[in-house]
Amino acid sequence: MTTMTKAAVFGTGSWGTTFAMILAEAGNETTLWGRRPELVEAIDRTHTNLDYLPGVALPASLRATTDPAEALRGADFVVLAVPSQTLRANLAAWREHIPPDAVLVSLMKGIELGTTKRMSEVIREVANVPEERVAVVSGPNLAKEIAQRQPAAAVVACTDEAVAERLQKACHLPPWFRPYTNHDVVGVELGGAVKNVIALAVGVSAGMGMGDNVGAMLMTRGLAEISRLGAALGADPHTFAGLAGMGDLVATCTSPLSRNRTFGERLGRGMTLEEVVAATKQTAEGVKSCESVLELARKHDVEMPITEVVVGVVHDGMSPSEAGMLLMSRSPKPERYGV
Amino acid sequence: MTTMTKAAVFGTGSWGTTFAMILAEAGNETTLWGRRPELVEAIDRTHTNLDYLPGVALPASLRATTDPAEALRGADFVVLAVPSQTLRANLAAWREHIPPDAVLVSLMKGIELGTTKRMSEVIREVANVPEERVAVVSGPNLAKEIAQRQPAAAVVACTDEAVAERLQKACHLPPWFRPYTNHDVVGVELGGAVKNVIALAVGVSAGMGMGDNVGAMLMTRGLAEISRLGAALGADPHTFAGLAGMGDLVATCTSPLSRNRTFGERLGRGMTLEEVVAATKQTAEGVKSCESVLELARKHDVEMPITEVVVGVVHDGMSPSEAGMLLMSRSPKPERYGV
Repeated sequence: MTTMTKAAVFGTGSWGTTFAMILAEAGNETTLWGRRPELVEAIDRTHTNLDYLPGVALPASLRATTDPAEALRGADFVVLAVPSQTLRANLAAWREHIPPDAVLVSLMKGIELGTTKRMSEVIREVANVPEERVAVVSGPNLAKEIAQRQPAAAVVACTDEAVAERLQKACHLPPWFRPYTNHDVVGVELGGAVKNVIALAVGVSAGMGMGDNVGAMLMTRGLAEISRLGAALGADPHTFAGLAGMGDLVATCTSPLSRNRTFGERLGRGMTLEEVVAATKQTAEGVKSCESVLELARKHDVEMPITEVVVGVVHDGMSPSEAGMLLMSRSPKPERYGV
Repeated sequence: MTTMTKAAVFGTGSWGTTFAMILAEAGNETTLWGRRPELVEAIDRTHTNLDYLPGVALPASLRATTDPAEALRGADFVVLAVPSQTLRANLAAWREHIPPDAVLVSLMKGIELGTTKRMSEVIREVANVPEERVAVVSGPNLAKEIAQRQPAAAVVACTDEAVAERLQKACHLPPWFRPYTNHDVVGVELGGAVKNVIALAVGVSAGMGMGDNVGAMLMTRGLAEISRLGAALGADPHTFAGLAGMGDLVATCTSPLSRNRTFGERLGRGMTLEEVVAATKQTAEGVKSCESVLELARKHDVEMPITEVVVGVVHDGMSPSEAGMLLMSRSPKPERYGV
């Protein structure tokens, strides 16, 4: 008799719930932790998450609880899918229950405000675990499409390749979900955090009526500036051409489901920031993180011209056409520099 | 008094005409060569190209001729924008008039059938010129958008960096057209040639009703297989994360103007190959080149699973859903291999 792998997933948003679905269907004993008793009870009893994944039948084997100790008991993988800026406080409350050999897995895409730390850095610091016990999952993974059983691919990254392979095995669900291993945690996390800033820029250009050349130019030169930041922080430049770099960027920049793109589009059509904020229900992550990304870039003396104009347009009253002129009037360059 | 740079552009299609426009407006004395006297006369006298760029006013300084000797007289740059499969015969007829120091510039994106040679290889062979006199321009450059004066960026590649910089200067037109230099001719050409194959795959998936995760996955893993082919042929892997790799791929795969994407979409919606061919006016380049790309891959023992299923679906009666199952059921892999 083989022992089942156990997984605890923290966060009942659309991606946490969907990833818990994948783990449960791939044969792991999976428990989803949520804060709100009524939502958790609905998931546990009716196998639906009406708030975030209406119309999706969750696996009968997926359990849900509001008790972190219960979720964490015997967990091999502790998957964290809470809002980036709440991770530190949440994890501090849970850490005493984390089994000593568990691998902590981040699904979060953000940079901590104030500290400019990546999510894996916050995890290592708060849970006091070495880097080989922290993994990251990222890629073009719009949760709603995966929950509707469309195929998707992702990257599972850990500095310890054997750990990455264990996680790959745990969440591999052919022909539906296909994870690839990668050793570059820094690059994978930066790709996920900065893409939202570039999606704002692509949205602004689309709102101004620009077509596919401009979109592709912004995504590609956006990826070039993410790569320069990555090089300064020790990332592997090849990661950015992969699923957590280009892949996630393209999905986010082209999807009508992307909040950041939509936010930018409204700015590009001439709405003021106040009007756009009023028209936007959920937060567009890039609106906050463009500032922490730019702060990180300046700390490391990295040129990020697109991020700079995004901060200008979103926070400092720069007009979209002025932003475009600035970008297109820079001095001629080799395609690759600072990497 | 400074001497003006002279450019001859061969090919009155939408991209040849648009690039001639850019060169003329950037201050080069530019002559466009075309085969059909009535089209050439209309361009020369009325500064319009009604066949390929209706509604666009060409610069008054742009001349047009049907005489290759006249176009080539004193040319510093000889820009080639004819259909890929006609290059060899065309260039053989023109070569005696090419000035001895002229740089030959390819705008073409194809692999020669039969020889599996890249366009720059055909140029060097037929015109008998060394590699430092051959440059390539590529990137996300849907001609119609540029002709409508939307901004765009491109890569100008030559193994001789000084030559790349001269060409960059000649076609730099801020804030409208922004060229970046690159030394990697092989990588830039492969990106342009293989993207049409991947665009067919993305089209098929869209026709089947798949969303943005699947599109981004195909583009990213498509780029991974282009990179593997590039590594086998001596390309710089970083090129593929740039404008001629990812940039052109994204523009082609997402644009409704892309013939290859549209062709694939019709297959994905269940039309037979015969029905799609009958419904398609202009050739979708990838339909032919998927076979020469696969031939090239096999010669060099490179795994290209997406190209393989595209050949299967387009030429060998494989069903789109069978193709999807095949791709999603491959053994788990590290993200980067064979590069």
